[in-house]
Amino acid sequence: MLLALFAAIPATALASGDEHAMSYDIWLILAGMLLAAKLGGEITVRLNQPPVLGELCVGIILGNLSLVGIHLFDGAAQLVPIEFLAEFGVVLLLFEVGLESTLTEMRAVAPTSGLVAIIGVIAPMVMGYGVSLWLLPDQSFSLHLFIGATLCATSVGITARVLKDLDAMARPETRVILGAAVIDDVLGLIVLAVVASIAEFGSVPGVKDLAVIIGLAGGFLVGALLLGAYVMPGVFRVASKLRTPDVLAAVAIGLCLLLAGASGAAGLAPIVGAFAAGLILDEVHVKPFGRKSAHDLTEIIGPIVAVMAPIFFVRTGMMVQLGGIGSESLLLAVALTVVAIAGKLIAGLGVRGGTADRFTVGIGMVPRGEVGLIFANVGAGIELEGHPLISTGVYAAIVLMVMASTVVTPPWLAYRIRRVTPKQTDVA
Amino acid sequence: MLLALFAAIPATALASGDEHAMSYDIWLILAGMLLAAKLGGEITVRLNQPPVLGELCVGIILGNLSLVGIHLFDGAAQLVPIEFLAEFGVVLLLFEVGLESTLTEMRAVAPTSGLVAIIGVIAPMVMGYGVSLWLLPDQSFSLHLFIGATLCATSVGITARVLKDLDAMARPETRVILGAAVIDDVLGLIVLAVVASIAEFGSVPGVKDLAVIIGLAGGFLVGALLLGAYVMPGVFRVASKLRTPDVLAAVAIGLCLLLAGASGAAGLAPIVGAFAAGLILDEVHVKPFGRKSAHDLTEIIGPIVAVMAPIFFVRTGMMVQLGGIGSESLLLAVALTVVAIAGKLIAGLGVRGGTADRFTVGIGMVPRGEVGLIFANVGAGIELEGHPLISTGVYAAIVLMVMASTVVTPPWLAYRIRRVTPKQTDVA
Repeated sequence: MLLALFAAIPATALASGDEHAMSYDIWLILAGMLLAAKLGGEITVRLNQPPVLGELCVGIILGNLSLVGIHLFDGAAQLVPIEFLAEFGVVLLLFEVGLESTLTEMRAVAPTSGLVAIIGVIAPMVMGYGVSLWLLPDQSFSLHLFIGATLCATSVGITARVLKDLDAMARPETRVILGAAVIDDVLGLIVLAVVASIAEFGSVPGVKDLAVIIGLAGGFLVGALLLGAYVMPGVFRVASKLRTPDVLAAVAIGLCLLLAGASGAAGLAPIVGAFAAGLILDEVHVKPFGRKSAHDLTEIIGPIVAVMAPIFFVRTGMMVQLGGIGSESLLLAVALTVVAIAGKLIAGLGVRGGTADRFTVGIGMVPRGEVGLIFANVGAGIELEGHPLISTGVYAAIVLMVMASTVVTPPWLAYRIRRVTPKQTDVA
Repeated sequence: MLLALFAAIPATALASGDEHAMSYDIWLILAGMLLAAKLGGEITVRLNQPPVLGELCVGIILGNLSLVGIHLFDGAAQLVPIEFLAEFGVVLLLFEVGLESTLTEMRAVAPTSGLVAIIGVIAPMVMGYGVSLWLLPDQSFSLHLFIGATLCATSVGITARVLKDLDAMARPETRVILGAAVIDDVLGLIVLAVVASIAEFGSVPGVKDLAVIIGLAGGFLVGALLLGAYVMPGVFRVASKLRTPDVLAAVAIGLCLLLAGASGAAGLAPIVGAFAAGLILDEVHVKPFGRKSAHDLTEIIGPIVAVMAPIFFVRTGMMVQLGGIGSESLLLAVALTVVAIAGKLIAGLGVRGGTADRFTVGIGMVPRGEVGLIFANVGAGIELEGHPLISTGVYAAIVLMVMASTVVTPPWLAYRIRRVTPKQTDVA
């Protein structure tokens, strides 16, 4: 039945990448992604791995079915509704993760998170620069710098899902990783501005330009904190008096989207805003709803995330195109992956004392995800002497590095956390 | 804060209708729509009206802010992600409505629903033909026929929401309306095929073409029933053994999307498939999950619908463009609205005996929604002697009729249901 239905999809309509397609096939594609996600998740759960690994793997399979002559999902990952729903899914996931953390916990680990983030930006950049210098000796200083920059930004979605899958939200490593990922995003923004300016204009950006960038990002974070401290209690006091059913979920998600948009406007990733929204929605503000609803906010958001987030991870897998990778890209990809991983493991050394497991934090920072790809896209858009700074081959290598760092994390992180868990329990 | 953020959106980017925009403004637009929906819903609830009326009204306000010089939401309703999310919202709503109905209940009212649907297609068509003949005497037989056809298809989303808002899901009228809406959709499909063929080729479609259309639609409905009876129990027996968390919601929504896509492939509205999916997901199949999860399926789906469905209703309101309506369209619009409403009230007479309140059923069938607009678009695409069959003025009148029928229903239906409720309670 399922296959017969999919066979009815005109493959050409999808393969042509018609982004305006709003016909019935979008529902079939979504249904296929969602059901495949749960099937893949189930397989990896039975192999004692986090479900997100299975979602990524079924995504890779769906996205590369064309290699065996099946074109049902060709171009599906590029359809605007799928892209949007995936983005919505990861925004809601980080919102939920934020809800399960508190501001106080995050503040307690702020110095550690800061150090992890700074080392985690510098180490992979330097090592990536070295790899580029070694493997692409004829290329420009700008390219080496840019390749180094694509290695610096952690994409926290995968790690957050693995930690959630493992019920590890309350661990100290989780707080350090989440805090470092937020700071990392701000640092990445500055690095991108500096590197892009050097590549395009041959000079670092002016103090004024940098001040605007830092001011916007910092302003967003400070604004979010103030909002949480002074505005939110009032908003939820009013909202608790509303008579409309299910108003809590809608107002909370409305706030999440508002901060996702605001962080986007400040140049940060929307997931940073969504995480901040979850963070400032403290239990305190939600309490007035207690008498209206049996569920607490996390319980209401949970099923929404369970349905939406897998779309993001399956789509991430679908973006991996196994065909058409040249061997010259492969060597660069392998070398970049090695330093991408090594650089973040070194960042784990930023954890001081025995407060958290350094290796766990390092592994948690490994996934690069879409932030690295955004860097690569900016680089591909910069023209130097008539050629794009990032060539097709280099772009493919960066994509492979992003994908490898993404797929390697779930089993590795799960293994490490299970290994250190008894020790942690002894301490507690 | 909110306004300051929206002011940051480049109005031109939205006004240009750039459908590929996947930047931060999409989150701000969504946040605005969601928060406005709850505000509007709250106001109408306090006025003793269903929240959906408030959602429609804030939508109309947001969509026409350009009339007072505010261009924040210009073109927002046409953005692909918003259009998609709205469609997703109404699909999930009809799925939830289907979950709250059972197949047995629907079968019991099938003869009544069938009669209501048939009268509800014929009466507005004949009266619409008459109005067109009267107000547009110089126009062709094809146009009169086409205008009549745009009046025949009920769009059940609004009615379903009102009935849910009023806690009236268990009423006999609700079952009659839902059943009639499904049959109505099949009849509308046949009417569209016949009328479009007459307009374009001057003849009714061949028996073979009609057989294919009816066969596909009928095949979908029969297929959905067989799926529910023979396949679903097995699927959910297997799914109940899965260890992945939240698998129930994802599998259920996966099934909903699958049937939405299948009904689309059969030429029916996706909401018909979503409703059918809800209908066949009987309590029986969900029971094995009882020990895994404290919630039952409706409780899990509820918050998702509460967040997603308002996007559909706010967007529906935003589509109402108050500016630029000519007075010649206005007269036609008023006349069409009158017969559109009268035709469906007559359909209520199809209720036999005292099984359900005829007037309630009639009002419930009034909203036309997107199905009428699809008809109008098909008509606008047919060229006769170098001119589109449906001119801009006639199109505007049809849009106004759709909107009037949509906005008038919530308060009217709420009024009627509250009026007849005591009587019903006496009977029960």
